[in-house]
Amino acid sequence: MSRGRTLRAGLIGLGAMGRHHARVLSGLEGVCLAGVSDPLASKIAPFHGVPLLNDLDDLLTLGIDYAVVATPTATHEEVGLRLAAAGVCALIEKPLAHTVDAAHRLVTAFRSRGLVAAVGHIERFNPALLSLRDRLEAGELGEVFQVATRRQGPFPNRITDVGVVKDLATHDIDLTSWVTGQDYLSVSARTISRSGRAYEDMVAVVGQLERSAVANHLVNWLSPLKERSTIVTGDLGCFVADTLTADLTFYSNGAGHTEWEALSAFRGVSEGALIRYAILKREPLQVEHERFRDAVLGLPADIVPLDHGLRTVAVSVAVLRSAHEGVTVHLSDHHRLETQKAH
Amino acid sequence: MSRGRTLRAGLIGLGAMGRHHARVLSGLEGVCLAGVSDPLASKIAPFHGVPLLNDLDDLLTLGIDYAVVATPTATHEEVGLRLAAAGVCALIEKPLAHTVDAAHRLVTAFRSRGLVAAVGHIERFNPALLSLRDRLEAGELGEVFQVATRRQGPFPNRITDVGVVKDLATHDIDLTSWVTGQDYLSVSARTISRSGRAYEDMVAVVGQLERSAVANHLVNWLSPLKERSTIVTGDLGCFVADTLTADLTFYSNGAGHTEWEALSAFRGVSEGALIRYAILKREPLQVEHERFRDAVLGLPADIVPLDHGLRTVAVSVAVLRSAHEGVTVHLSDHHRLETQKAH
Amino acid sequence: MSRGRTLRAGLIGLGAMGRHHARVLSGLEGVCLAGVSDPLASKIAPFHGVPLLNDLDDLLTLGIDYAVVATPTATHEEVGLRLAAAGVCALIEKPLAHTVDAAHRLVTAFRSRGLVAAVGHIERFNPALLSLRDRLEAGELGEVFQVATRRQGPFPNRITDVGVVKDLATHDIDLTSWVTGQDYLSVSARTISRSGRAYEDMVAVVGQLERSAVANHLVNWLSPLKERSTIVTGDLGCFVADTLTADLTFYSNGAGHTEWEALSAFRGVSEGALIRYAILKREPLQVEHERFRDAVLGLPADIVPLDHGLRTVAVSVAVLRSAHEGVTVHLSDHHRLETQKAH
Amino acid sequence: MSRGRTLRAGLIGLGAMGRHHARVLSGLEGVCLAGVSDPLASKIAPFHGVPLLNDLDDLLTLGIDYAVVATPTATHEEVGLRLAAAGVCALIEKPLAHTVDAAHRLVTAFRSRGLVAAVGHIERFNPALLSLRDRLEAGELGEVFQVATRRQGPFPNRITDVGVVKDLATHDIDLTSWVTGQDYLSVSARTISRSGRAYEDMVAVVGQLERSAVANHLVNWLSPLKERSTIVTGDLGCFVADTLTADLTFYSNGAGHTEWEALSAFRGVSEGALIRYAILKREPLQVEHERFRDAVLGLPADIVPLDHGLRTVAVSVAVLRSAHEGVTVHLSDHHRLETQKAH
Repeated sequence: MSRGRTLRAGLIGLGAMGRHHARVLSGLEGVCLAGVSDPLASKIAPFHGVPLLNDLDDLLTLGIDYAVVATPTATHEEVGLRLAAAGVCALIEKPLAHTVDAAHRLVTAFRSRGLVAAVGHIERFNPALLSLRDRLEAGELGEVFQVATRRQGPFPNRITDVGVVKDLATHDIDLTSWVTGQDYLSVSARTISRSGRAYEDMVAVVGQLERSAVANHLVNWLSPLKERSTIVTGDLGCFVADTLTADLTFYSNGAGHTEWEALSAFRGVSEGALIRYAILKREPLQVEHERFRDAVLGLPADIVPLDHGLRTVAVSVAVLRSAHEGVTVHLSDHHRLETQKAH
Repeated sequence: MSRGRTLRAGLIGLGAMGRHHARVLSGLEGVCLAGVSDPLASKIAPFHGVPLLNDLDDLLTLGIDYAVVATPTATHEEVGLRLAAAGVCALIEKPLAHTVDAAHRLVTAFRSRGLVAAVGHIERFNPALLSLRDRLEAGELGEVFQVATRRQGPFPNRITDVGVVKDLATHDIDLTSWVTGQDYLSVSARTISRSGRAYEDMVAVVGQLERSAVANHLVNWLSPLKERSTIVTGDLGCFVADTLTADLTFYSNGAGHTEWEALSAFRGVSEGALIRYAILKREPLQVEHERFRDAVLGLPADIVPLDHGLRTVAVSVAVLRSAHEGVTVHLSDHHRLETQKAH
Repeated sequence: MSRGRTLRAGLIGLGAMGRHHARVLSGLEGVCLAGVSDPLASKIAPFHGVPLLNDLDDLLTLGIDYAVVATPTATHEEVGLRLAAAGVCALIEKPLAHTVDAAHRLVTAFRSRGLVAAVGHIERFNPALLSLRDRLEAGELGEVFQVATRRQGPFPNRITDVGVVKDLATHDIDLTSWVTGQDYLSVSARTISRSGRAYEDMVAVVGQLERSAVANHLVNWLSPLKERSTIVTGDLGCFVADTLTADLTFYSNGAGHTEWEALSAFRGVSEGALIRYAILKREPLQVEHERFRDAVLGLPADIVPLDHGLRTVAVSVAVLRSAHEGVTVHLSDHHRLETQKAH
Repeated sequence: MSRGRTLRAGLIGLGAMGRHHARVLSGLEGVCLAGVSDPLASKIAPFHGVPLLNDLDDLLTLGIDYAVVATPTATHEEVGLRLAAAGVCALIEKPLAHTVDAAHRLVTAFRSRGLVAAVGHIERFNPALLSLRDRLEAGELGEVFQVATRRQGPFPNRITDVGVVKDLATHDIDLTSWVTGQDYLSVSARTISRSGRAYEDMVAVVGQLERSAVANHLVNWLSPLKERSTIVTGDLGCFVADTLTADLTFYSNGAGHTEWEALSAFRGVSEGALIRYAILKREPLQVEHERFRDAVLGLPADIVPLDHGLRTVAVSVAVLRSAHEGVTVHLSDHHRLETQKAH
């Protein structure tokens, strides 16, 4: 397999996210967007001359090397299993599936057939978080004490079949494990649902990570103030990643004592340097697609394997259980239990 | 009892916080700072001609109407009980005591003698939080969904005999109950202690408040980035109070849809107005002292009663238990249990 | 003339700005983009099936109601005069022309034929400045004392045949006159050119406006820090408009005195409320095109008349003269002199 | 002369600034505050047991090594000349004098007697500007293109006998020359006076510095938004010094091109790193006093010599003349003319 070959890609689902995938796939070097399937195909504006089909089977008939799955979460399992059965590689939008069992079946289906598959945890391709992970791995923060994320903003009008935990908090769960290299051991959560809503609109989570670090997530679509921040505090200071602006800033611990008394009240007893790094900013979706294409071509490429997606689904399910039952959920037990049922 | 009388006040403890009390007491209208006691009196610089004594008994001998207790937390009980026994009113620094039982005994001691007593939860006198509470009571936010506080900064050099939960998080616990008028039903917490430290340096908490609101607290003295923020999100938007600058800002929910696509990615699908209120900013410690003086004089004055201080100690003990045992602690049960032992 | 008719528009110049015009024209209701001319037509990627022509004559042959001129500034005069001669209305990019004389000839050419013509001073369609102008007109600031603008950022790679005064500062000159309704009486300026550059890269200007207000402009493409701000200070406070984010914020004068001494050092002796208005944010280029279309249709529409563009060119020429000769240039004299030569 | 000797200092004037000097002088190592003179001595609260005298002669009678002059600007000449005549060294508040001639006479009086004398241009002791000057001297910015300062805020209630140019803009004029090591060649200014006010309340200045750099100053006491910023843009990026918080931040020019299109609109085509330096923050007034004490003791110490104060007065007079006459004032000529009269 060489770079010379042009891959044929299909896109399944042309909603808000699907349109972004279509834009990137259309311009992706070495890839031809062979067709798009959407059950509403007949009512949708055509996309630059790409065949728009009602049904996944019609798309498969066109002959594709891989598909991008951007359908509602509840359909990921069925669509993914059909792709796997047809021997088609797949980049599946996050969250991987609506249940741990479904996620398990997807992992098994692609793995057993040796097909390349990934989950679209796009924050892993955000320039700020890519840089953050490299710096944590290089030991620039020393021991990691805490990862605190905030992801909030006004309610998006796009239709969703899940609540804020699966729709948004899965970003935070995945990125926290990924940047620290630590799994969740336990989670305790509280949720809020506005009156008349079937799913939760707000969640607050504390979690314990493997090597004693603490996680905190505040996620909601109830706030007029839009935020996408990840703050990692450790032995040498703290990193603040803003994935809206793709900025990564490091606040280093201060050495000297601030003698100017009026100032120390506002800034603290000591102040270190603050550095906002110069980062080459590429669009995350573009990078995600380039890497997946390379992986399909058999080239070395850092994609998000399906079992990471499964792990994130398991944590999100634990978060929801914790909130509903008012208990702390320990992941190892929980995960084991759920996954036993999966077989 | 009239405004005409000059009250005689004593100060117990001349550490970092004690010096601030001494400064304010020295200039407080209608009050004479009769004396200061500190076990290290002989080694301490004199304070503007005020008698500096080694022992509380010597201070009591001077004849005082009330005392301000600014000693280490572990001594609050003993000092407070001696003051109550001597018929002296007391303003006791926060947290009220190191255990729920001790806090209970203090409540009982002052109450049974009909003495005026208060806890120094100074955030209740911060202009930003005073304004916030008034606005929440006036319904400006509608239903409250979430109270999220962040209190962090570099490690203070002042000596402390407690960890970050009792030293700092008690501020957040008290203010959250106070601004919302809701007690805590449960808490789940995780803590971090740096190697070699006896007490925790960092805590992350989620809690359930009485009327379904969620609390989240991030408190530590490990961060180079100093923050003192309280963010209350509700039905109509969110309030952000910064108690360092005494600013209160309201982000209202947006009505219209942002059509400028490049902007909506950064600011969200809709934006409402942002208002930072014009607030008359008085120093919180000054207000705390004026109110306590007025209460001792029998005038109407909003002070922090000891049972609020007890409640906050109970929640902080629950936070520590949750972190140590890895469970969610339900406050009603917990509180009942602890308080049964107190009798 | 009614809304029912579809106008035929042409676009001249397909550089960086031209491509933005092409995007908006392609989707503009009631308008058909009939063709695009660019001398490099043969080397340019086609634009969604719109005819791409080498020559303006070929474009005119297609039959168009109006043209958008997005060519280098030095060519505006020639292109504009040809359009006027052909009886075609024109929306000409800013600055209107490279000299006051040329600008005069364009004003005369379109006016004498009764053709609708406008200059593309796009900041007039920025939501923040539209709101600012309305509020100034409504007297929300009282007397205007000062308009200070900052427009800076890294060097853009697009080719330009003018310096920073004509390329960027013309935005500030035009918007200052427009939001205040005051002409410039005099300007004093200093410029900087980096070694090896033909045109100035940085300019600092102070100017006197008609009704005693002062203008200050800092404009350059030498700074790593991107800014687009307009700050209007007056009797009742100050407005800050950010045209990057389309935010308008009002800082009102404070009434009370800040008694908290530590705070007043940082925030000043008094603080009023700060309001960032909720503004419906539409893309300025879209609004500019909608208005010009309406004007061509004979509907009432607020466009930027060519004589405003002329006035702005005159001020920019005065700015350059002030910088080169080290003198203060009085606009009335200057303008009169220049315009005499124009006839 | 050795460190061992205790210097006797006098303070003249106990207004707002005088009280700050009294506080620092009282605690200054190696210095005894011998007495304070103020014409309102009888009506002023005593200062910690320091003799408070009505008249300068009484202060001189006490025997002092040096005096700090914190009286209204118009009296600096008379007070300074009396001190020089008495052989007393002097630290004179800024601006040095109300006219260039008066400043000249002060320079001559102290120089001719070999007395140590300095002007209180306190910004030179601000940690942010001290660091900025060191970095500019070390070539960290390459060629300096522009120095832009903003100094504004609400009107201070302290009584002043001068306008905003002499009271506040002299800070900016002095610091600009000092950090860049460049004198002013010319200035062009516009001022605003509110109705009923004798002095100007707002000034906007552009100036030419010696080695082709441009200066811009916006100074007023009409704005609710308090700012004290100095922005130096040069070949390698820009420095922003905030003297309220004593922060110095460097924005370096970016190398790479931002490919993420949505971001480049807000942040510019390239972004370099941003660094806010860790600075040991000492109170500027404390440093000013320590240095002047050392200079009086004959130790090497960087103080602000009177001829720098003279130069700043000359530029401020030129700024006022430029504003009143509507012309650009060239400093060399101006300065020469004024100083000829001084002899």
